[in-house]
Amino acid sequence: MVHLYGDERIDYLLAEEDRRIIQSPSVFAFSLDAALLARFTYLPKTRGKILDLCTGNGVLPLFFLNYSRVPITGVEIQERLYDMALRNVELNEAGDQVSLVHGDLRDMPDYFKNNKFDLVTVNPPYFKTTDEIMRNDNEHLTIARHEVYCTLEEVVVSASRLVKSGGKVSMVHRPERFIEIIESFRKHKLEPKRVQFVYPKAHKEANMLLIEGLRDGKPGLSILPPLYIYEENGEYTKEAEKMLYG
Amino acid sequence: MVHLYGDERIDYLLAEEDRRIIQSPSVFAFSLDAALLARFTYLPKTRGKILDLCTGNGVLPLFFLNYSRVPITGVEIQERLYDMALRNVELNEAGDQVSLVHGDLRDMPDYFKNNKFDLVTVNPPYFKTTDEIMRNDNEHLTIARHEVYCTLEEVVVSASRLVKSGGKVSMVHRPERFIEIIESFRKHKLEPKRVQFVYPKAHKEANMLLIEGLRDGKPGLSILPPLYIYEENGEYTKEAEKMLYG
Repeated sequence: MVHLYGDERIDYLLAEEDRRIIQSPSVFAFSLDAALLARFTYLPKTRGKILDLCTGNGVLPLFFLNYSRVPITGVEIQERLYDMALRNVELNEAGDQVSLVHGDLRDMPDYFKNNKFDLVTVNPPYFKTTDEIMRNDNEHLTIARHEVYCTLEEVVVSASRLVKSGGKVSMVHRPERFIEIIESFRKHKLEPKRVQFVYPKAHKEANMLLIEGLRDGKPGLSILPPLYIYEENGEYTKEAEKMLYG
Repeated sequence: MVHLYGDERIDYLLAEEDRRIIQSPSVFAFSLDAALLARFTYLPKTRGKILDLCTGNGVLPLFFLNYSRVPITGVEIQERLYDMALRNVELNEAGDQVSLVHGDLRDMPDYFKNNKFDLVTVNPPYFKTTDEIMRNDNEHLTIARHEVYCTLEEVVVSASRLVKSGGKVSMVHRPERFIEIIESFRKHKLEPKRVQFVYPKAHKEANMLLIEGLRDGKPGLSILPPLYIYEENGEYTKEAEKMLYG
């Protein structure tokens, strides 16, 4: 039995019917973005190891459980979310495969030293911080969404230092910041190799992007087929539905 | 009457039914890329002026005739193509609006001095040059397709120097070189504002990109809805057909 606090609830992990996840609308509930990153990323299956930065309630490690047998480590700075992630690992009896670190991603390169990863995934805060936002919003959600504790570049620096040469870094972010992401990746030796833009529906601009960089890789970018989430009538596209619900 | 040389022929300019264009399979025939760039680009209608670098047989200036009344200048380095462009202007009785310069785009900033443009368009060579290619291919086509006379960065430098502050530069290129384009644009003060990826068909990777930069602009990129050229059965999509044939 796991404990639930406040407005926490146990949800299904979408298509992963054997998995459950503790969420809370006021603290942290995973979004489509995490599901898309889980489907997009390269995933080591039987060899190597995975690090998930900004793991929140551990949603990405949970998504990976049914597709990979390698050790997965999640890092979360917010104690309240770290605690939720711990209980999610327990709830899914995944303690043998998933470990969690309560800490600041900027400290992780020193923490892990020469212990480097084959894959680093990250669903970082999307928005630059403003005082306005800090004063008005829910603290947990603000930290998850805004660059309170780390900037985009700090995320990229940590990921770059934590991944092996020849290893991959996968990120989900916003197209408005695409150029900044590209520049930051290259500056820190992560060569962008695959990009997929996600469009809310046909004839709309992209509102999400998935990117994979190869540590010390050679230049050569592929722009994957676009991904649409909703039909004109507001229902999920077949593609999105399949990704989300199997 | 205009003269036709060798294997030259007069084609319709796609949807521009009142326009004709002299082409030659062995020297220069415009491709889908030029038509897509013509549809994608911002176009000054009644005020300002336009410069088209790597104009070839003058296809872009001809495309613009029915949509803009501003002066248009085309620059072409190959005398054989420059001559074809001259005859195209004559054939379309566009001498009042379109002028042509036979020269190297790298010399144009000095040539035009402080005479700057509101829009610079360019459909540059896509491929890096190798000795192998130079030895084997048709010279005219090689120069149009490969970076024999100018590199991507030289194109961007010239465009950046030739456009007004607040003016726009529109380019069509290949996604493999997207990152290089972005970096070069920004290095030379052209802020990427709009990008559209072109996919040969659904579920395939992009094989063309359209990009518009704003001279001295603020960061903020939009990724436009994707464009598909062919249906699964090999016919043009409605969207492509409409763009090409009206």
